[in-house]
Amino acid sequence: MSNGAVPEPDPTKFTGGDAVFLQDFAVLSAFGATPGGGVERQAGSPADGKQRAWLAGILRGKGFDVSFDQVGNQFGLLELNPGAPYVLVGSHLDSQPTAGRYDGAYGVLAAAHAAFRLAEEWRADGTIPPYNLAVVNWFNEEGVRFKPSMMGSSVYTGKMTPEQVLAITDPKGITVREALEATGALGQGAGPKAAYAAEIHIQQGRSMERDGITIGVVDSNWAANKYQFEVRGEQAHTGSTVIADRCDALLGASMLVVAAREIADHFPDGAVHTSVGQLDVYPNSPVVVPSLVTLLLDLRSADEKLLEEADRMLHDRIDQIEQAARVEIRKTGSHCWPVTPYQPEGVALAEKIAANRGLTYTRVKTLAGHDSTNLKDLVPTVMLFVPSVEGISHNEHEYTTDEDILSGLHVLTDVVRSLCLGELDPR
Amino acid sequence: MSNGAVPEPDPTKFTGGDAVFLQDFAVLSAFGATPGGGVERQAGSPADGKQRAWLAGILRGKGFDVSFDQVGNQFGLLELNPGAPYVLVGSHLDSQPTAGRYDGAYGVLAAAHAAFRLAEEWRADGTIPPYNLAVVNWFNEEGVRFKPSMMGSSVYTGKMTPEQVLAITDPKGITVREALEATGALGQGAGPKAAYAAEIHIQQGRSMERDGITIGVVDSNWAANKYQFEVRGEQAHTGSTVIADRCDALLGASMLVVAAREIADHFPDGAVHTSVGQLDVYPNSPVVVPSLVTLLLDLRSADEKLLEEADRMLHDRIDQIEQAARVEIRKTGSHCWPVTPYQPEGVALAEKIAANRGLTYTRVKTLAGHDSTNLKDLVPTVMLFVPSVEGISHNEHEYTTDEDILSGLHVLTDVVRSLCLGELDPR
Repeated sequence: MSNGAVPEPDPTKFTGGDAVFLQDFAVLSAFGATPGGGVERQAGSPADGKQRAWLAGILRGKGFDVSFDQVGNQFGLLELNPGAPYVLVGSHLDSQPTAGRYDGAYGVLAAAHAAFRLAEEWRADGTIPPYNLAVVNWFNEEGVRFKPSMMGSSVYTGKMTPEQVLAITDPKGITVREALEATGALGQGAGPKAAYAAEIHIQQGRSMERDGITIGVVDSNWAANKYQFEVRGEQAHTGSTVIADRCDALLGASMLVVAAREIADHFPDGAVHTSVGQLDVYPNSPVVVPSLVTLLLDLRSADEKLLEEADRMLHDRIDQIEQAARVEIRKTGSHCWPVTPYQPEGVALAEKIAANRGLTYTRVKTLAGHDSTNLKDLVPTVMLFVPSVEGISHNEHEYTTDEDILSGLHVLTDVVRSLCLGELDPR
Repeated sequence: MSNGAVPEPDPTKFTGGDAVFLQDFAVLSAFGATPGGGVERQAGSPADGKQRAWLAGILRGKGFDVSFDQVGNQFGLLELNPGAPYVLVGSHLDSQPTAGRYDGAYGVLAAAHAAFRLAEEWRADGTIPPYNLAVVNWFNEEGVRFKPSMMGSSVYTGKMTPEQVLAITDPKGITVREALEATGALGQGAGPKAAYAAEIHIQQGRSMERDGITIGVVDSNWAANKYQFEVRGEQAHTGSTVIADRCDALLGASMLVVAAREIADHFPDGAVHTSVGQLDVYPNSPVVVPSLVTLLLDLRSADEKLLEEADRMLHDRIDQIEQAARVEIRKTGSHCWPVTPYQPEGVALAEKIAANRGLTYTRVKTLAGHDSTNLKDLVPTVMLFVPSVEGISHNEHEYTTDEDILSGLHVLTDVVRSLCLGELDPR
C-alpha cells in the first residue's frame, strides 16, 4: 500500500486494541485511495457508499444497531439503558477532493473503537450507564459536491430542515436524495436523542506540533463570515474589444481575491484568515471576456472586533473594484457565525482526563468548522484535537503519528465513558 | 421571433436577392437561438449539426455539390471549369456560448448568396471563369469546446494534421472525430484546391461605426502571444492554515489576471490588448486553498515592438508573483503570431470595388483571429469587415444593420467575381 507520500500506520509496534485500531485505519484509508497517498470520497460518492457499508459491518460485528436517518447520518447504537438519551461520538467519513486520510475519518474510527472498548467493559462488569452510546458518521461535513458543509449535523441540530437538504443539487443536477438512495444511505427519522456529544479530529494547524502538545481541548471556534459573490460584467471579444470598453468579470473577481489576501496581511500575524477556495467563470472561453464569475470568500478571526474591521475593509474594497473593473459585485449568499464557546465543564473534563493519562495538553480554538460546532449548540460537547504534522490538511500529505492518534483514542474513550456515566450531569 | 434584444432583419424593406438574404439570415439565426436574442451553437453540437444540414440544403438547391472534408470543413462546390482550382469564400457557423448572430454566420451566408448570384450570372451568360467557386463553412473557428480555435482552416492550410485534430477531446473526453460523426459532418479528403480566398466578417470593434465607414478592407492582423499557464500551489484548509503557510494557486492566478490588465494600461490608449478569458480552479472547493489553476492569457498589439515589451513585462511580473504568492507558474502552451499582411493586390482590389459601389471604406487591421488569417498564408486572400454596432461581439447583443450586411454582401460578390475571373493573376 505504501507510496512514499506519508507513513503507513504500523500496527506491529502496538498491541491489543491499539494494533487493531491501526489495522482498521489502514483498511479505511483504502476506500477512495488516491495515487498521491490520500483519499477522495466526496459525500454521496460510490467510495462514500462503500466506506459506510464497511463501517456498518464493523459496528454490527460488535453488536451495535446500525441505521441511517432521514438525511444519511449513520448511527451505530449501543442501547444498554432502554429509553435513555445518547452520548453521540463521531465525526465524518466524507472527504475533500485529493484529501488526506485523517480529516474526519480518524474521528469516526476513534469513536467506533472507543465505543467498542466501553461496550466490552460494561458487558464484562454489568454496568448500566445512565446514557446510551451512539457512534455517528455525519453526512457531508465537507460540503464540496453538495453545499453547505456540515449538512448532516445541521439537520440533526435543527439548523436546516430535511426537506431543504434533500432537494439540494450537485453541479450535474443530482439531488442529495438521489445520491443517498444510490449509495443505500437514505433512512428515516431524526436519529437518536442526544444528551452529550464528543468528537476528536486532527488540528489542521501547526501550533500543537510546534509546542509539543499531544491533546488539544477545544474551548471555542473562530468567528467566520463566509460570502458568496457574483461578479457581473459583459461578454466581449478578448482580442478586438478595446480595453476601455471592457467590463471584465474575471478582472473584478481577481481583484477581489487579491484584496482578500491584502486584508489578512493588514492585521497582526495570524489574527485574520481570508480565502477564496472556489471560483467559477462564465462563459470560460479563451476568447471571450467573462461576463459572470461566482466565488466563495471567507473571513475568519478569533476576535470578533477584528473580523468586523476586516469585513468593513472588504466592503470598501468591493466598492472600489466595481469602479475600477466596471463590474457589479453582488452578495448572493452568506453564512456567518460568532465566536462561541464549547461548554467549560466539558473542557475541564477533557483537561482532567488528559492530565490523568500523563499527556501534554492545552486549550485551542478551532479555525475550521466541525460537526461538533453544530452539536455544541444543542448539548454539552467535548471537542479534542491531536496534532497535524506541519499543519498540513485538505491535502494528500496530511499526517498524524500513530502515537498521537492512539493517545487521542485513549483520551476520547475516557471522555465518552465519563459522559455516559453522567459525570457532567448537573449535581 | 423578436425578443427586444437586437432588431430582427427586415426583408420587407428590400427586394430581390437582398430580401431573400435577410430571410435566410433570420432562419439561420434560429438555430441554437438563446432567450437573450443570441445563439449558442458550439462546434460539433446538435445545433451545429442542424445548421450545417440546412446550409447543405440551400447550397444543393442552387446546384452546388456539398461535401465535408476529413475534419468537418463543409464545402459547396460550383465546378464550371473542370479541374481548375477554386476561389474559397466563407467563414464559420459555429459560435461561442451565448454569442451573437453575426460572428461567422454572416460570412458563411454572405458567401453562399454571393456564390448564388455569380452562379446565376454565369449560367445565364455562359461564362466559364478560369477558377471554380467554393462556398466554405470552416469547422470550429471559435475553439470553445475543442481547442485550438480556427481548427478546420488550420488543417486545410497544413498547420495541423487531421490526425492531431480528430483526437482532440472536449472536457468530457469526447473526441472531435466522435462529435463530427454524431453530427454527420465527418467526410473524407482534404477539400478542393484553392487559388484564392475571401471572407467577410463583422468588425467586432467600434472604429468603423465611429468613423462612419461601411467597408473595412483588412490589410493585416495584429500580432498576438497567447499563453496557457499553470499556477501551482499546495492544497490546504482555508480556515485553519495560517496565511504565511499558504501556497495559494488562485491568489497567484488572480495576481496574474490583474497584472495582465496593468500591462495593457501601461501602454498608450489601445496599443496593447490583454485578457484572460478562461480560468479553471482545482479542487475548487469552498474550504480548500486551491493547488492548481490553469488559465489562458493573451497579449495583442499591432506593433510587434510594443508586444515584445509587454511580453517582457509579463514575464517580470510572473517572477514577482511566484515569490509573492509562493506559487510556481509554468507556461504549458503558447500560440504566437506576428503582424502579417493580407496580400496588397487583394487590398487594392477590394478598395477599388468599394469605391465603384460608392461606399465609404478604409483599411483596418484585424485584432481577432479569423479563418482568413490562416488562408492568407496559403493563397492571396481578401478579408472584408462591416461595422459592429457599439463594437459589441461575443455577446448576444452583437448587431450590424441590414444596410451594412447587404453592402458587405454586394462588395463580397464583386470581389469573388473578380477573383474567379482571374483579376489578381500575375500578368
